[in-house]
Amino acid sequence: MTSIGKTAILYTLAASASDEEIRAQAMETGYSLIKGKVGSMSTEKIFAAVETAAQREGLIRKDFYRDTHSLYHATLDAYVSICRGQLGLGNMLRTVGLIFTVVRGPRTTEQLEDGEWLAVVLYGMIGAPVKGYEHETIGMGLNHL
Amino acid sequence: MTSIGKTAILYTLAASASDEEIRAQAMETGYSLIKGKVGSMSTEKIFAAVETAAQREGLIRKDFYRDTHSLYHATLDAYVSICRGQLGLGNMLRTVGLIFTVVRGPRTTEQLEDGEWLAVVLYGMIGAPVKGYEHETIGMGLNHL
Amino acid sequence: MTSIGKTAILYTLAASASDEEIRAQAMETGYSLIKGKVGSMSTEKIFAAVETAAQREGLIRKDFYRDTHSLYHATLDAYVSICRGQLGLGNMLRTVGLIFTVVRGPRTTEQLEDGEWLAVVLYGMIGAPVKGYEHETIGMGLNHL
Amino acid sequence: MTSIGKTAILYTLAASASDEEIRAQAMETGYSLIKGKVGSMSTEKIFAAVETAAQREGLIRKDFYRDTHSLYHATLDAYVSICRGQLGLGNMLRTVGLIFTVVRGPRTTEQLEDGEWLAVVLYGMIGAPVKGYEHETIGMGLNHL
Amino acid sequence: MTSIGKTAILYTLAASASDEEIRAQAMETGYSLIKGKVGSMSTEKIFAAVETAAQREGLIRKDFYRDTHSLYHATLDAYVSICRGQLGLGNMLRTVGLIFTVVRGPRTTEQLEDGEWLAVVLYGMIGAPVKGYEHETIGMGLNHL
Amino acid sequence: MTSIGKTAILYTLAASASDEEIRAQAMETGYSLIKGKVGSMSTEKIFAAVETAAQREGLIRKDFYRDTHSLYHATLDAYVSICRGQLGLGNMLRTVGLIFTVVRGPRTTEQLEDGEWLAVVLYGMIGAPVKGYEHETIGMGLNHL
Repeated sequence: MTSIGKTAILYTLAASASDEEIRAQAMETGYSLIKGKVGSMSTEKIFAAVETAAQREGLIRKDFYRDTHSLYHATLDAYVSICRGQLGLGNMLRTVGLIFTVVRGPRTTEQLEDGEWLAVVLYGMIGAPVKGYEHETIGMGLNHL
Repeated sequence: MTSIGKTAILYTLAASASDEEIRAQAMETGYSLIKGKVGSMSTEKIFAAVETAAQREGLIRKDFYRDTHSLYHATLDAYVSICRGQLGLGNMLRTVGLIFTVVRGPRTTEQLEDGEWLAVVLYGMIGAPVKGYEHETIGMGLNHL
Repeated sequence: MTSIGKTAILYTLAASASDEEIRAQAMETGYSLIKGKVGSMSTEKIFAAVETAAQREGLIRKDFYRDTHSLYHATLDAYVSICRGQLGLGNMLRTVGLIFTVVRGPRTTEQLEDGEWLAVVLYGMIGAPVKGYEHETIGMGLNHL
Repeated sequence: MTSIGKTAILYTLAASASDEEIRAQAMETGYSLIKGKVGSMSTEKIFAAVETAAQREGLIRKDFYRDTHSLYHATLDAYVSICRGQLGLGNMLRTVGLIFTVVRGPRTTEQLEDGEWLAVVLYGMIGAPVKGYEHETIGMGLNHL
Repeated sequence: MTSIGKTAILYTLAASASDEEIRAQAMETGYSLIKGKVGSMSTEKIFAAVETAAQREGLIRKDFYRDTHSLYHATLDAYVSICRGQLGLGNMLRTVGLIFTVVRGPRTTEQLEDGEWLAVVLYGMIGAPVKGYEHETIGMGLNHL
Repeated sequence: MTSIGKTAILYTLAASASDEEIRAQAMETGYSLIKGKVGSMSTEKIFAAVETAAQREGLIRKDFYRDTHSLYHATLDAYVSICRGQLGLGNMLRTVGLIFTVVRGPRTTEQLEDGEWLAVVLYGMIGAPVKGYEHETIGMGLNHL
């Protein structure tokens, strides 16, 4: 059994070299998935990077607000987590360098009747705007599509 | 290069069969790590399970409040993340079934001079108190020891 | 043009005598709607009352977690609003007496192609557990179904 | 019996054509009320629009900080609600188009001895900065004057 | 010049021996003030202790909800601060031992025309339910009466 | 017995004339302490002012991220408290004029074996960007070093 969240987390943390293999395996079991990078002190750039990539790769339909709405809240949940509840980046003198992943598919490969879901994972470094003054952080949001 | 957060996340998500192998490898590079399970509608049981396990396995010193303080805030950060900012479990009619991991060691294997850190990962299912009415969630807190 | 949120708010605030009329009118334009009451110092009773009523009246399908998930988060958003961000009732020495409404249908009667949405409105009194020591509060959560 | 919150909500949602009628009726029972519009990605513009209108129309006294303080916190409570706890607009890649109402008067027309209160209602659309990619939201703050 | 907040903080931190002296001095400049103790893992006991003491000593009028409302929100602000944003005590496996102070009077002794305000200060220890596993915390809420 | 938090609060509130005396006394019992001022509508300036002063005066070591990390979270806790949970300054149309203090030393003078801690206190005025439209606020964060 595979699940959408685990797929998203492991794809995010995989070395680039394994990306194609994981992607191929996941697609066989019914998942679509994309991966990207974003570094910024501006929160809105994280939201924009995730949404743009998900639309471009066809993980959400551009013409249906409900798809954008679902992705927005999954991204917001992931963002709340990397901030650990106190929202803000540059305005709180901190910056992030993140890998993001969006996965679309069933909650688990044994729950197909429950329809499609989205998982957004943000993983990377959060810290002061000084090289090396940072530590890891992860956040994941799941939402029904 | 290995990092404390990635080590914690991958150990959490690993199938039980791989536990010993990952643990041995991590210990070679300077990490101590433990893994446990907790399912509850009571938030305090999560805090208690993590702390008890970390003390018993010697990841934090029982007689130094600063160790307990460091672990508490790492656990709180992880908890805030699995709740995605809105704190509460049973009182908000939801329950969790979690695997937790605590890792102690350097931020990365290339930053030994920066001393020891703790990583707490909570991963599992969150949802209604009805079988199968749940989805995955993850949270991680890092703190200097 | 009618919208799901406005329909939910006005139905919540209507005098009982007008309930049937509003309900009939809303159903003609494509909305299903229910109304109930809940008074408590326990947050979970609000969630339970809304979910039970919505399932019983068929506004969400009992056998699909995605419906329950959508309703849960709409209710959570409404709850966050009546608490104005600081979550808690009895544990913070306050109590609520609420009317709740759940509406299912299109975002507006001109956006049928965007599928079905849920609106949850909580409206009533919040205050000290002393008769008359209370004031009004409202919260609304919207979610795609 | 009429209450300050219900008066504020219904005035906010009324079609412009009914504004004068509602206003006249409310004033007879002891309420002063104003209504305005604000659309922005900048949170401070919402606070400024509400305060400026309330001062200009004499709902709060400009020379007494306590009046401004009361209005500020009523507006903050309403703002927390339209954001559903996660504060931010443009910085989180979302925008609002709102109608706002400020009402001044007794908590209810049967509680005159309890002095004057303020109600602030914000109602409108929240969503992506793309036409039509938005849904309704409402927030209300009440405070003693 | 004396201010309500500074008066409240210094009275809270004063050794018991100085209480009467500070109280007499503050009352001369127009402040009423009380001091008490509360230790608990239950948040509601803090609210109850502060309210009961303030009513008994006549700092707020028992028969006017607006006074209770003002005190409640000042106490809530102080409580949010001692929790540093993540609300909860026993449910998050932590406990507090607090001194609380309520002061009533002008914002400063030079701003008499602005009417009466309330200040609530909570100061003490927060930590694990283990002797000595705790550190200091302070919170203050101010509100117009 | 002296404690780090009380030392920090009383140093912050002391009239400038007493600064040297308090500082000398505190240093005798094992505390290092600094005091500064910052006024701004930009949250990041508060973080920058506290960090710069603490580094310059040697309260934290510039070359060890763990020191910066400890100070950052102590400052964040203090900041959350002066905002009373709803984070934001200029973006919420409010401004602060603050005195800040950083103290380094044992939790109390009787708990030397528990190592060094940091206390950050922010105290001053918060309010509208209009002269005199403001009231006092305080926040304190403690962290192990």
